[in-house]
Amino acid sequence: MDARDLEGFFTTPGAIDPEDHLILDYEMECVGDPREAAAHLCSEQSTAQWRRVGVDEDLRPRFGAKVMELEVLERRERPSYPLEQGPQGAVHACRVRIAHPHENFGPRLPNLLSAVCGEGPFFTPGVPLIKLMDIHFPGRFLSHFQGPQFGVQGLRQRLNAFHRPIFFGVIKPNIGLPPDAFSEIGHEAWMGGLDIAKDDEMLADPAWSPLAERCRHLGAARREAEAATGDPKIYLANITDEVDRLVELHDLAVERGANAVMVNALPVGLSAVRMLRRHARVPLVAHFPFIAAFSRLPRYGIHSRVMTRLQRLAGYDVIIMPGFGPRMMTSEAEVLANVRACLEPMGDLRPALPVPGGSDSAATLEGVYQRLGTVDFGFIPGRGVFGHPQGPRAGAASLRQAWDAIAAGVPVRTHAKKHEALARALEAFSG
Amino acid sequence: MDARDLEGFFTTPGAIDPEDHLILDYEMECVGDPREAAAHLCSEQSTAQWRRVGVDEDLRPRFGAKVMELEVLERRERPSYPLEQGPQGAVHACRVRIAHPHENFGPRLPNLLSAVCGEGPFFTPGVPLIKLMDIHFPGRFLSHFQGPQFGVQGLRQRLNAFHRPIFFGVIKPNIGLPPDAFSEIGHEAWMGGLDIAKDDEMLADPAWSPLAERCRHLGAARREAEAATGDPKIYLANITDEVDRLVELHDLAVERGANAVMVNALPVGLSAVRMLRRHARVPLVAHFPFIAAFSRLPRYGIHSRVMTRLQRLAGYDVIIMPGFGPRMMTSEAEVLANVRACLEPMGDLRPALPVPGGSDSAATLEGVYQRLGTVDFGFIPGRGVFGHPQGPRAGAASLRQAWDAIAAGVPVRTHAKKHEALARALEAFSG
Repeated sequence: MDARDLEGFFTTPGAIDPEDHLILDYEMECVGDPREAAAHLCSEQSTAQWRRVGVDEDLRPRFGAKVMELEVLERRERPSYPLEQGPQGAVHACRVRIAHPHENFGPRLPNLLSAVCGEGPFFTPGVPLIKLMDIHFPGRFLSHFQGPQFGVQGLRQRLNAFHRPIFFGVIKPNIGLPPDAFSEIGHEAWMGGLDIAKDDEMLADPAWSPLAERCRHLGAARREAEAATGDPKIYLANITDEVDRLVELHDLAVERGANAVMVNALPVGLSAVRMLRRHARVPLVAHFPFIAAFSRLPRYGIHSRVMTRLQRLAGYDVIIMPGFGPRMMTSEAEVLANVRACLEPMGDLRPALPVPGGSDSAATLEGVYQRLGTVDFGFIPGRGVFGHPQGPRAGAASLRQAWDAIAAGVPVRTHAKKHEALARALEAFSG
Repeated sequence: MDARDLEGFFTTPGAIDPEDHLILDYEMECVGDPREAAAHLCSEQSTAQWRRVGVDEDLRPRFGAKVMELEVLERRERPSYPLEQGPQGAVHACRVRIAHPHENFGPRLPNLLSAVCGEGPFFTPGVPLIKLMDIHFPGRFLSHFQGPQFGVQGLRQRLNAFHRPIFFGVIKPNIGLPPDAFSEIGHEAWMGGLDIAKDDEMLADPAWSPLAERCRHLGAARREAEAATGDPKIYLANITDEVDRLVELHDLAVERGANAVMVNALPVGLSAVRMLRRHARVPLVAHFPFIAAFSRLPRYGIHSRVMTRLQRLAGYDVIIMPGFGPRMMTSEAEVLANVRACLEPMGDLRPALPVPGGSDSAATLEGVYQRLGTVDFGFIPGRGVFGHPQGPRAGAASLRQAWDAIAAGVPVRTHAKKHEALARALEAFSG
């Protein structure tokens, strides 16, 4: 690429129509001239060859992705992560903001992914390491998407649960129990105060726990718990399966008694979720398998916040994500970025409920709440409810007791002196 | 996990029925005792809690994933890639082979991915870095999958092309041309000897080049080229789009004149490909956007070979993948592993045609052929055909001339002395 070629891939914020472009924030480590690497990054993700041989034309003004900002952060002696094949010498770490014309592909999730996380960005000459850090959509693009059907407020209304977190529990043992035994422990947890009892992300429709039968059992148990407590409850069934079964399994699950469904977002594909959203009559819940494989490392891959935005775009009402604490190997800043991506304004799309999870229990609730600074979140223990020494009813009660203390401004440990379920939870799960 | 808990997650090859298990090869870096980390890795991907509170039971013998082999490779002072949050001290690099009971999820791609690349493996306590290196399927699992409909031999028969590589070309300019201009250069390339002219992975169904219109133009151009040359030709249309349009777009494309379709595997999702496979009447071709985001780094993520195997399982006849050379930042060993994963025996599934690509031209054909040691591959230049100084007809001819030389055992440079298209290609694209 010569100097004139390069110019065709640069622009200024005032020179383009923001409604016609996605804004992409990448961080990259490049060998050689950062301006040339940034131009290649644009070329590779759009008009890799911008004229025919023998024709005087230039397809870049309309179709080229273009650099809006380029900042060189530092020089490093070698790429942060050594590759088996690729540039090995000194690199510049850069931040680059790109405007990508969305008419190149239209409001389609697979084509969006192909452009912004595809061969282009990841095989740019001179760029061994790159991470897509964020993505911003103009209203003109967003208007083609439904987004969440219920959102945070719709879910609260269904549960008649306001001004507090929503209490989820992952029924455990997660794998191997027959539907009747599985529903018994779900029932116990609802009786103790859980809002939403859910299937593990690995439990779907196996021969030893067919979804239809499980939903029938859990549906009956849910209605019993609703009658006994006077509170609405949700059984969240995992319908993750082959794409062409999703609609059918949604119907089957809802008919049998599930009143929300979970679909593992990346394993099924975001586009399949968007398809299901058009059909769904109950809240859609996302789980996060696969995402860590490309989001954990600070300097390569795709930031999890991008996936959170795309899950909201696809139409999820609830997004389960890795939460706080060393166990989840996710920085506090990243968790908070994902929570914000659920709740902050995004065109006309409703907010999704963020559910940061990982080894939670009554002992961690206050810390999570304080870090988030909002009650608009879901709290999702597994063992913290179903591994409680007194069983799942006490496990669920321990969460509600912990919240009562927090809401009243009473130290949780003080409150525990008069509430045994909470006391036993703190004993079993602290530190 | 205490010593007795740990034992429940170990087995020996003779103690399990191989037909009931997937075999998973991971490499990981773990803090603390490698045996404990390996047991956690099994627990997290299967029975994370294997008994109810107050019930004397053990779900592990039937449902637990189990360590078959564990090899400590070396001790490292710190993890190979520093994380923002997670273990930072000394680690052991280990290789671990796990038997995972497939009745936990059944023959479903999203549920398979959720188990083997999901929260379990990537959030195992004490394991900051892990890579799924390979996966092996028993016949009992494979028998539920159709795999490729045509495979290598079926594709050869359709093209009447035997004992040589299949010559693909990515029509360029890839983005921005209207269908008539786009089809003219495709036609030129077929006339020069190309077998398969294809859409770029970023060109799908945009307003400025509607798929229906493009297929109509390219279909007519293809038939003209077939009549003129006497050889069957393929127009490979990219129908990558939202999942619920794939079947409709397949029909539309084929009706208008496409005789193979491409679907970007990961952006659409492997399950959607399996759905399309049940319906498809023409060969299905995979492209690789998104895969590098989790496969490039040697010590984290998922090896691309796993994705190649899954693409074949989903039913692709042709798998385009990053090829040789520094540009593609993929080691020779990795390219060869992916080629083998296409061609080697896999239950009753047909082989898929491997197409390793990246900046290829007549100048690189001999090197690719020599590295592969087989003619069962596709060769896929973009600029090497459509950026040839004499235009696409000469670009395509230069590939066939290069192959004529290789097949005859004549040095390509010698052959170029009497073949101008080849001579100009070597001049333009060498080194």
